[in-house]
Amino acid sequence: MSKISDVASLAGVSTSTVSNVLNGRVDRMARETLARVEAAIAQLKYRPNTTARHLKTGHTPLIGLLVPSMANPMYGFIAREIEALAQERYGFRIMIGNTYRDKDKEARFFDDLLSHGVRGVIIISSLIDEQHVEAAAQRGLVVVSYDRGATPGLTSIVDHVSVDSFETGRLAAQHLIDHGHRRLAFVTPAGRTMSRNEKIAGFMAAAQAAGLHGDAAMVVEATPENDYGDSVMSELGRAQAVRLAALPQRPTGIVGVNDLTAFGLMAGFRDAGLSVPDDVSVLGIDNVFLSTLMHPAMTSVRLPVPEMAQVMVERVMSRLADTSIATQEFIFQPTLVTRDSTAACRLA
Amino acid sequence: MSKISDVASLAGVSTSTVSNVLNGRVDRMARETLARVEAAIAQLKYRPNTTARHLKTGHTPLIGLLVPSMANPMYGFIAREIEALAQERYGFRIMIGNTYRDKDKEARFFDDLLSHGVRGVIIISSLIDEQHVEAAAQRGLVVVSYDRGATPGLTSIVDHVSVDSFETGRLAAQHLIDHGHRRLAFVTPAGRTMSRNEKIAGFMAAAQAAGLHGDAAMVVEATPENDYGDSVMSELGRAQAVRLAALPQRPTGIVGVNDLTAFGLMAGFRDAGLSVPDDVSVLGIDNVFLSTLMHPAMTSVRLPVPEMAQVMVERVMSRLADTSIATQEFIFQPTLVTRDSTAACRLA
Repeated sequence: MSKISDVASLAGVSTSTVSNVLNGRVDRMARETLARVEAAIAQLKYRPNTTARHLKTGHTPLIGLLVPSMANPMYGFIAREIEALAQERYGFRIMIGNTYRDKDKEARFFDDLLSHGVRGVIIISSLIDEQHVEAAAQRGLVVVSYDRGATPGLTSIVDHVSVDSFETGRLAAQHLIDHGHRRLAFVTPAGRTMSRNEKIAGFMAAAQAAGLHGDAAMVVEATPENDYGDSVMSELGRAQAVRLAALPQRPTGIVGVNDLTAFGLMAGFRDAGLSVPDDVSVLGIDNVFLSTLMHPAMTSVRLPVPEMAQVMVERVMSRLADTSIATQEFIFQPTLVTRDSTAACRLA
Repeated sequence: MSKISDVASLAGVSTSTVSNVLNGRVDRMARETLARVEAAIAQLKYRPNTTARHLKTGHTPLIGLLVPSMANPMYGFIAREIEALAQERYGFRIMIGNTYRDKDKEARFFDDLLSHGVRGVIIISSLIDEQHVEAAAQRGLVVVSYDRGATPGLTSIVDHVSVDSFETGRLAAQHLIDHGHRRLAFVTPAGRTMSRNEKIAGFMAAAQAAGLHGDAAMVVEATPENDYGDSVMSELGRAQAVRLAALPQRPTGIVGVNDLTAFGLMAGFRDAGLSVPDDVSVLGIDNVFLSTLMHPAMTSVRLPVPEMAQVMVERVMSRLADTSIATQEFIFQPTLVTRDSTAACRLA
């Protein structure tokens, strides 16, 4: 078993530098130093002694992770990244819960974390009202909130890590506009979350800048059958595609609020006898790996998941190590990945 | 906050009956009584006091869950079911880890569970050598092993819950044979697990019973690029489809070892200019909800995941409550779900 001094000598740094990396105190560290320490940790398969750390810090080497549902491949992907980083880099394990964006379930999870002696938590939720999350932070949890920014005008004691959701919606709509589409729709489950609101705002901003108003830029909100099923998003997309296909002036360019909804949209347009992309262009947001397996392969807006997961884990670890660190907001930029489900509008 | 006596009076049973349900002692309970108690628990949103339970039993209300990778939608689905049952029915939380079917990672997870005071664990792995799992049970963990049966001839102190994997392979091959296919292939990553071996045995048994020998019933084993990526299974299927399509006597009916591999196979045959199912029939095993979103919708062998998850959680809870309960093997039966990716062989 390697010791911290082995890592330090391999990397050519002091043991306190290694300790800083292990505890996430890397803000003022040269990139090159950080990379060398990380390489040494990986090469030696160094693993901090969590029991010793636990005794020293008085808290359990566990991070809580709340996800809407592990059955959604996007959250499975994020959870896998978070778990791997927490475990391999810090020796922390993950206590996970499906909380279905339900405020009560989220609050109960916070209670349980505190009663288990867990001090750090990452919550994926994006509910508009985040008071229960701030309250958990006031009770002593180090909280990172994913998929929404801080509430404007309020001082937050929670870190926020998210993609620029306005930009995801704008990129998606602009891509369709650039391909000559003049009748657009954005399909989402009803129940506004912060990120959904921002995606819609970005979509509408691009549409209006292109002179598309009224029914030329529709927001289609549908109530899902339930919030629990793994297939709820795709079923919603599928049903809405059939409905949109029957409209006298049907839209020709459709954005799904996420990839699962867009997978459903593609299947629903096929059900209705329309061809993607010949009759209708469809794209999603998230760029889960399954997008490449669709037929046609689906255009999507990529979120930088590994990069965001790394910041989330590092923020939890560094603030657990030093509670005086101020909370911050981290906003990542999305990128468009063009595939075969979007094409020039034939009706233009 | 409801009390156990409230649940008992609403259900019209004694508090000890409610306690039996909460602790998984339901083997000899009338189904109707169990249903009534569960309905009362749900209606009153009754939640056992986990701290009191912890003090009484001396162990933490956490279950460990080892999965190959949360990024695989099948394991996300199983994990979601297990977490929901453990939490809603027993007030237990889940400590989760991605262990990539790596024996060392699995063993380290067991160590960490013990050091956290966790006593119950569900492991999804199917490695042929399970000695490290038996060793964990000897150290005091209550272990349920998923996706493989007990090792024949060995006495196990671990519960085994699995689907009849031989039957999944047999059902898949027989479906192709029934549609006139006389050249079959089974595509799998190299690295034999218990369940892969059994699927292959079932596939070969059906083929041989139909008089298909040699190249008429191929097992294609490919080495994945890595074991960590979410897309590794589908990429492997995709590459093998291109290879199979180029064979002079190419197979016309292909079974993927799981749905992700089969999704890749379908995409790969398209890449090679073949049509599914006109030129080649493809089916998978698992029946994840994404199968219905493929184009064409994919035939798959269904595993009864919710039913298996329930038995796994109940076994952990009942054996935590009464360590004298003997371990068992539970084998569930798969069913074929026919969709549009398989059809009568045109070359027959």
